[in-house]
Amino acid sequence: MIQKLIRKIRETGAPICAGLDPMLSYIPEHITKKAFEEKGATPEGAAEAVWQFNKAIIDAVWDLIPSVKPQIAMYEQFGIPGLTVYEKTVRYCQEKGLIVIGDAKRGDIGSTSAAYAAGHLGAVQIGGKEFTAFGTDMVTVNPYLGTDGVKPFVDACNQYDKGIFVLVKTSNPSSGEFQDRLIDGKPLYEHVADKVMEWGAMSMDGEWSNVGAVVGATYPEMISRLRNIMPHTFFLVPGYGAQGGTAEDLKRAFDKDGIGAVVNSSRGIIAAWKKDSYSQFGAENFAQASRQAVIDMIKDIQSVF
Amino acid sequence: MIQKLIRKIRETGAPICAGLDPMLSYIPEHITKKAFEEKGATPEGAAEAVWQFNKAIIDAVWDLIPSVKPQIAMYEQFGIPGLTVYEKTVRYCQEKGLIVIGDAKRGDIGSTSAAYAAGHLGAVQIGGKEFTAFGTDMVTVNPYLGTDGVKPFVDACNQYDKGIFVLVKTSNPSSGEFQDRLIDGKPLYEHVADKVMEWGAMSMDGEWSNVGAVVGATYPEMISRLRNIMPHTFFLVPGYGAQGGTAEDLKRAFDKDGIGAVVNSSRGIIAAWKKDSYSQFGAENFAQASRQAVIDMIKDIQSVF
Repeated sequence: MIQKLIRKIRETGAPICAGLDPMLSYIPEHITKKAFEEKGATPEGAAEAVWQFNKAIIDAVWDLIPSVKPQIAMYEQFGIPGLTVYEKTVRYCQEKGLIVIGDAKRGDIGSTSAAYAAGHLGAVQIGGKEFTAFGTDMVTVNPYLGTDGVKPFVDACNQYDKGIFVLVKTSNPSSGEFQDRLIDGKPLYEHVADKVMEWGAMSMDGEWSNVGAVVGATYPEMISRLRNIMPHTFFLVPGYGAQGGTAEDLKRAFDKDGIGAVVNSSRGIIAAWKKDSYSQFGAENFAQASRQAVIDMIKDIQSVF
Repeated sequence: MIQKLIRKIRETGAPICAGLDPMLSYIPEHITKKAFEEKGATPEGAAEAVWQFNKAIIDAVWDLIPSVKPQIAMYEQFGIPGLTVYEKTVRYCQEKGLIVIGDAKRGDIGSTSAAYAAGHLGAVQIGGKEFTAFGTDMVTVNPYLGTDGVKPFVDACNQYDKGIFVLVKTSNPSSGEFQDRLIDGKPLYEHVADKVMEWGAMSMDGEWSNVGAVVGATYPEMISRLRNIMPHTFFLVPGYGAQGGTAEDLKRAFDKDGIGAVVNSSRGIIAAWKKDSYSQFGAENFAQASRQAVIDMIKDIQSVF
């Protein structure tokens, strides 16, 4: 899978993914109003608004980028109608040729992680046949439970040609509370990085592994260090833009050939129309504002190479 | 919420929860066959089998126990039909007066955790009205992202009278890979325990906090230590039975009044009919085998006090 992502990054010249994390407050009123009229001011109506919003943005940006990252929590909060739209969004993006990274941060004891891996990456066996549920191409995984919580996801990578990104150093302000604590002289996140490389060796795809790492853009010096010690691990880098990470910071996530990371922007792309710098588009043309934000983000990242 | 759980534990004399983690292999053939005939050998059929299986077990055990713990991964693997049955199971258990602990192990950056907290414990705001999605009473939470990943769940505990159990020391074999590593002379899980107490202080309900801890039955010496250092933290203890934890081990999770923990058994209860010791019930009476397994588990745990 990781080679497929690399190929698409090379084709587009855009090592980025668009975070499809739609909050209702990001959705223009004309979309919400129509959805509520059709399906009520209910979870069904909210989910419909999310779907129309996503679809318009995907239609406007799919040719510019290799991948998208829907954050499942933003759908899960609306229950079944929300998760139905999550699934629909995954499929629609895949039809457009986009690689879909499900930001689910799942992780549990072995048999339970196997169920998550089946639901998000692989398939379940029912009456001797295989059925896929969410069918994302890659998914984020939480490492707190150790190898037996991650291994089922690695197995799914091998069996179904998929990929994962394991949380190593997250982008949020309190990520250091546990992740930065020193164990035998090096931070916990580096110990997690060691394991990610061990797991990664079990699912290589050319020079890169299908087992990647989440490394927040908000901690640039840590990106450099992790890039050096994890030469075969692809990074998913959240935190660009709204959370404070700059293109100069991000450069550290790439190798000398400009490969090695995919940078996520969520709010900066999908809620671009609400920013002063894109106000000329207006609420009606929110998807075109997103397209312009993607073009600007690509230019910004390319400028540092 | 935690006082409600304690009250129900006192009423039943049973500090246990039944883990509703249905694998298809646990479900008797007559249930699966009927469900497949009605809805096909499909995710819909599998989900229907899970629902009929759950319902029969709940009907057979609800009067004996205070709580159940559905593992959401076992439903999520079947996609939307599976999650629909998860929701239906939650509601049905609540109608029977059971406290439902959703084993979801969610956790993310602040705004995303807020969405998970809304979906699983609280409510979302749509057009000025509140809607609940899964509506579980308590939920398990992963602490790897630190305070800003957990705080939204604590806020939901306060706003909606709910509870959470944060992963401190999990029951699986590889839990020690990160959790046991020493930081300033004490293991990571104790540092997590310190934070759990800090978060817990923000949501007290009498002498106990609504912010509990997951502490695996498979590591008895660690249970003792954590019980001593966390006097106001209720424990959710997985790993009894199938995973190897004994009643004698579990005693350490309780305070001198026999309060302080709820012990989970999943396979040992819901798949009891497949064990030699309950084979007299036969597949037809699987739910009665589960009832007997619950009675035996209560007796086993009470015997050590």
